[in-house]
Order: sequence, then C-alpha cells, then structure tokens
Amino acid sequence: MRAAMNDHAVSAFASTSSAATTSHVDDLCRRARPAARVVSLLPTARRQEALQAAADALTAAAPEILAANVRDVDQGRKDGLSNALIDRLRLDAKRLDGVIADLRAVAELPDPVGQVLESRTIALGIQATKLSVPIGVVAIIFESRPNVTVDTAALCLMSGNACILRGGKEAAHSNLALATAFRAGLEQARVPADAVQLVALPDRALIAALLKRDDALDLVVPRGGEALIRHVVEVSRVPVIKHDKGVCSLYVHTAADQAMALQLIENAKCQRPAVCNAIENVLVDAAIAAAFLPRLAATLTPKGVELRADERALPFLPGAKPATEADWSTEYGELILAVKTVDDLAEAIAFTQQYGSHHSDGIITADAAAAEAYLAQIDSACVYHNASTRFTDGGLFGFGAEVGISTNRVHARGPMGLRELCTYKWVCRGSGQVRP
Amino acid sequence: MRAAMNDHAVSAFASTSSAATTSHVDDLCRRARPAARVVSLLPTARRQEALQAAADALTAAAPEILAANVRDVDQGRKDGLSNALIDRLRLDAKRLDGVIADLRAVAELPDPVGQVLESRTIALGIQATKLSVPIGVVAIIFESRPNVTVDTAALCLMSGNACILRGGKEAAHSNLALATAFRAGLEQARVPADAVQLVALPDRALIAALLKRDDALDLVVPRGGEALIRHVVEVSRVPVIKHDKGVCSLYVHTAADQAMALQLIENAKCQRPAVCNAIENVLVDAAIAAAFLPRLAATLTPKGVELRADERALPFLPGAKPATEADWSTEYGELILAVKTVDDLAEAIAFTQQYGSHHSDGIITADAAAAEAYLAQIDSACVYHNASTRFTDGGLFGFGAEVGISTNRVHARGPMGLRELCTYKWVCRGSGQVRP
Repeated sequence: MRAAMNDHAVSAFASTSSAATTSHVDDLCRRARPAARVVSLLPTARRQEALQAAADALTAAAPEILAANVRDVDQGRKDGLSNALIDRLRLDAKRLDGVIADLRAVAELPDPVGQVLESRTIALGIQATKLSVPIGVVAIIFESRPNVTVDTAALCLMSGNACILRGGKEAAHSNLALATAFRAGLEQARVPADAVQLVALPDRALIAALLKRDDALDLVVPRGGEALIRHVVEVSRVPVIKHDKGVCSLYVHTAADQAMALQLIENAKCQRPAVCNAIENVLVDAAIAAAFLPRLAATLTPKGVELRADERALPFLPGAKPATEADWSTEYGELILAVKTVDDLAEAIAFTQQYGSHHSDGIITADAAAAEAYLAQIDSACVYHNASTRFTDGGLFGFGAEVGISTNRVHARGPMGLRELCTYKWVCRGSGQVRP
Repeated sequence: MRAAMNDHAVSAFASTSSAATTSHVDDLCRRARPAARVVSLLPTARRQEALQAAADALTAAAPEILAANVRDVDQGRKDGLSNALIDRLRLDAKRLDGVIADLRAVAELPDPVGQVLESRTIALGIQATKLSVPIGVVAIIFESRPNVTVDTAALCLMSGNACILRGGKEAAHSNLALATAFRAGLEQARVPADAVQLVALPDRALIAALLKRDDALDLVVPRGGEALIRHVVEVSRVPVIKHDKGVCSLYVHTAADQAMALQLIENAKCQRPAVCNAIENVLVDAAIAAAFLPRLAATLTPKGVELRADERALPFLPGAKPATEADWSTEYGELILAVKTVDDLAEAIAFTQQYGSHHSDGIITADAAAAEAYLAQIDSACVYHNASTRFTDGGLFGFGAEVGISTNRVHARGPMGLRELCTYKWVCRGSGQVRP
C-alpha cells in the first residue's frame, strides 16, 4: 500500500555519476548474485530460521534503531517535512514491535518456492514439471516508511531471493540500523548477510546506475510517487513491476441498494484517503441522481470530504464545486471526491476504462446481470461487486503480506505477495528421447 | 525458435527521429488501443472465425504474397544476403500453405482467455476469482522470417490482444502482403483490422520512438539477435520479454549410458545448430573422459562438428582445437561444440550456472540421486534429465504454437504460448463489505 508522493525522495535524482557511485553499484551487484544463489537453494526451515534470527536481532537492536529513527525525525523536522510525512517516518517501541511481529509472521507463511505449478507429459513421453523458483536478485526502491525495509527484506528472503533495498534519504539512519540488525540476524543463522543489502550512498545518480545492471538484477520494484516510478521506468534495463497510482472508482447503478452504496463509498473514500485503493471518483446513474446525491452529500460532507461534480450532479450536491476534465483522472490522496453522472452502465464502463488507472473499481447494484457485465468489461487489477475497493490488499487477500499492489499487466497484477516474487522453471525427465 | 543474428535487421537502428516517424508511431498507437479493447471482449467463437477468415484471405492472396516474396528474395540476393538468410526469407506455395495451416491450427487451440486460474474467499467472505485476460497491446519485433508475421498475429488475436508487428526490412514486401491479407480477413469477419498493425516505415528511429510509448503498449517481445535485443532493452519503457541467446549444455555424468549420451548430444548439436535450444557445450566427468571422448569424436567428426576442448579433454579428441575462455559462453549457432572436463557433479553445476545462459541444460545419467541434484540446482528455463535440449519448444510442450522461448525471469520463462500472452484480473463478488 503506498501513500502520497514524497518530494524529498523524488528530488534525490538526476545528478551526474561519480566514481564512488560506480564502485558502490559494482559492489552491491557483485555481492548479490552469490548470496541469491545460496538462499535460492536453502530449504524452507533454514529460511524460516533466518527470519526468526533477524527478528531476534532487531529486538536486541531496538535501542539503536529507535535512536537512529529519532535522528531522522529530528532532521525531517528541520527540513520542514509535513506532519503526515513525519508520522510515516516515525518508529516507536510499539511500532517496532509490530514490524518485528510482521517479520515473524512472514516466516510462518506457506513456502512459495518449489511448488509444483503444473505437470504435463510433453513430446515422446517426457515428464515436464513446472516448478516455482525464486526470481533471483530483486531491487526495491521505496520512500519514507522505514518498516518497508524489514517487510520487503523478509518477503524477498522467504521467497528465496536476494534483495537490494533503496529507501528514502529522510529515513537513512533508520533504514541503516534496521538493515544492519537484519543482516546480523542472517549471519547468526549462517545465511549470507548479502542476501539483504541496503544502498548506502545518498548519491542521486545511483538509482540510474544500478538499474542499468540487468546482468546483476532480475527485477526492480519501485514503490512510491509518480515521479519516482516514471524515473525508474525511464532509466531501467531491468524488468520493472510498478506500484503506481490508483485512480479508483465506485459506480452506483440504478438498482443499487443506496444505503449500501453510502457505506461503501464512505469506506472507500474516507477510511484512509492517502492509499492507492481509496476511491477518487464516484459514478452515479442519472436516473437515481436526484434521490441519491443529496444523501451522498449528507454522508460525506460531515466527514470533511470536498465534492467536485459534473454539471448534472451539481444541483443535487450542496456545497460541491464544478469538476474539471483533470479531476476525472487525478489521484487526490486526500478527502476530495469527484462525482460524475452517467446515463447507463455502458457509459460508466467506458468512463472508468478511459479515466481510471485500472487499479480497483467496483459496481454497486442488486442487478446480477448488470454486475456481471461490469465485472467482465472493466479491465482493472481488481474489479468489485458490492464491496469497497479498500479490499485490494495482500493481507486481506490472504497472501499474508505484500510487496505492494502491482499496476503492471505482466507477471504480477494487483496484490503482490510471496508467490509473485517467484518465477518458474520446467524440470523435464526423460529416458533418452531425441527430437525427431 | 530463433536463429542466428541478422546483421541487416540490426543495422537498421540508431538514426535520428523525424516527423514522419513520430506521426507513424502516433498513428499506430492511437489505432491499437481501441482495437485491443474490442478483441479483448470477443467471445471465443468470434476470435476463431476471425482467424479462419484471415486464413481464407491469405489463401486468396497467395499470388500477391508469393510475388512480394520474390521481390524480397531478389533484393536480398543483390544485397548479398547469405544463402542461409535467403532460405529463411523465402516463401513458396508449399511453405505458404504451411503458414496458413499453422494459422488455422491456432484457432483450434484452447482459449486462454477467461480461464479461472484460482478462486479464493478473501476477507469478510468476499469471493475472489483470478481470471485470465488479454495483456492488451503487444509489440513484436522480429527479423527476417516472414512466417513470424502470421504466426504472431494469430497468437495475439487468439489471446485477445492487439499487436504491432515490426519485421526485418529484408522481408518488407512479404510482410506487407501477409499483413494486408490478414487484415482483410479480419474485416471480412467484422473484427477491427487494427488489431494487427504492421510498422510501415523502415525508419531506423522508429523502434526507439515506439518503445517510449508505455502509455500505448503493454508488452514488447523482441525476437532476434543479441544486438536487436540489447537495443530494445536499452530504449524500452514498455515491459520486455526477451527471446535471447541460448548457450545450452549437456553434462555426461560418470553413471551415464554412453550410447544414450552420444545420441542426445548428436541430436542437440547437429539437428538444427542455428536455433537457441541447440547445445554449445558438453561437460564430461573426468572419470569417464578416456572412455567417452573418443566415442564422442567418432560420432561428431563425421557430422562435420568442430570440437574445441579444455586441456584435459584434448588428448582424447583427435582433431579438436584448444578451447578459450570465450568458448564456454559463446552461442555458435553452427556445428562447433565446446567440450569441458569436470571433476564431479558439483563442478558441472557450477560451470553451467556460470557460463550458460539459463535457457536449456541437461544431465545424462542412470544415477537418480545425481539427476535430482542437477535438476534442483540448475536454474535454467528448462532442465533435462536424459533428454535432448531440443525439446524446449512450445509445440513439443503441447502449447500448440509459440511466440518464442523466453529467457526472461518474470512473467514467462521458456516456451511462451497463448497462455503467456495473457495476464489476469481479480473479480471480487461481495454483499456490501466495508474494510474494518
């Protein structure tokens, strides 16, 4: 789950390269592959032990970690970070306990490695088994929340991958303390510490230099604001799985249970407006606009939601502003909601396809045929009928934990958990077959 | 299956952009998305009909297609193309019949779209179904063989995708005639012709301009030589699935049936040396080198295979040359085989991991424990026990047809067929659930 863009992380781009950068990138890449090889072959129990050892090490290092975080928070205040960003940055004893508990929980998840995904008899009786295997070396580039350092390291290790982590510079001390403890835990468990590496230099050119190394990295996962993601896509030669913007919507069909619609919209907009599975748009059938929209305003206005509406909706929404074209595709990340009147299901589908980001969209209706048409025709990672879009989440999907929500169309789409950190290989057992 | 690098296609890069290029790219991109939307929603029978109509149109246009091919072949001769390249380029009535038959066969394959890949009950009882859906707009960049135009158009359409095809300039007339007929067939079947578009300009900057358009393209599949693939990886903002080089190997373990080993090596090296699943290296256990290597030379030398061997193997291989370090990671694409002596299974595995391209590798042994260790530890797209590496092929895997052999580690690995041209979405059916 990602929150709004972080200008500090984004500003850390676009300088020239340097000898130190090149040398640091070379060092990270040189260490990663052998470590990835070792962890890819570890049995389940050894990877679980390593994660538990990392959890123990983080517990032991709690004083150092919290002290490092205080330095980051103090610096953030000096740098004028917003209260919201300071809050995302802050670790206290309770939050750190939560991070460590989450880490231990990852060790209890089903092992995604070595699963038989498919078995088939291919030509001349050769037995082919499609087996899940780790991807290899995964780079994760993220912004300010330091818990991501531990979460992603745990998910990568449990899926048999080595990772190279690049957090935001505003969390530099926290991330270093967390990664140092994590690595110490790995060493304690006799697992290569280089399976988890943290980019140590704040150098702006480092991301670009790292992402040229498709010889050494197998995947990069950027998690953050649009500018970060765009930069990664532009410079990377390594395959990218984006965790990009969410312009999500709910559509209130003529046959909607309107009380349900109000609950779902309130949940999807207000519960946590900064995250990618919150909605930005509500579409309402023209036939029910007069009945429904005043109730919508009465529900959301007391919650502090600013409404921006099209011409047909405006008269029914006291206090709403006129929406502009740009509103329909804007990820507000705050308590603003764009309201659009549509003539019918077809217009709702066409509008969502055109303006949405294909992340999470839903229809609210008691009409099964309308629901099925919407579910079939909306091409989003998650498409809902009579449920809040806020369920697009690896934890709620039962994946146990998530790397994020992929907005890619290849490899992983929607919630990305341990399984999506694996690839596969074909193991083929023969008895002397030659190709005719 | 790809053959050796094509210098003509590769030379067609790296000029500056132009207004015509920009305009052509804009036009291709503008047309592709609406067509992709339409074909993504067509039921199976309509996609099948469209392919049959395309086959009929190709049959009707045979005279024009063959005449266009004669122009390409004549031009190729003037340009000094090798006989091998001329042969790849040539279409005659029989080959065209084969292309059309393959096209009709694609229409008979199981529909990869709309398959339920998984069903799960997620939080609060919401029913989530993971459903296969088309990727969207796929660009395929390939070299001289004109049959690829029809094969890939058919696979993309059957999987509900629109495609933008860019073939080699030496096959320009053939590709245009084939694509024109294919599109006429689509129109006949009332399917948007723009679901299959051919890049019309030979402009060298066009590939780069096209691959910046990650707003309009969802995937690019380059099939060709190393220079082409490198160029695509470097310039593309669109996700790439590479069909890259194959440095494949067979390892003759001490417990190998040596007669079987000779058959497998001969098949994997000699049957079609230019393709990516042919072997370039043979590893032989030192303990059986004296017994096995003379038999290997006696088998391969009469077939015209040049042997390049390490120091320990040389004395047992009459006529072999000393191998250099570069030989171990070279894709010869012709009748040359590098022979390496290893001390044991562990060295064979380490050598293959280091020098191979993780495409297709195999062990020949009667020792089940050795075989299982090899299969577990070799991280290649396809790993074989007692079979030729030449089975790495979508047709032989039962996929019916293939886009190629992916050397990627994400999305698709190894033979890539219709299923791998699909992504998925999560369809979630609720009854008013809000996130707590």
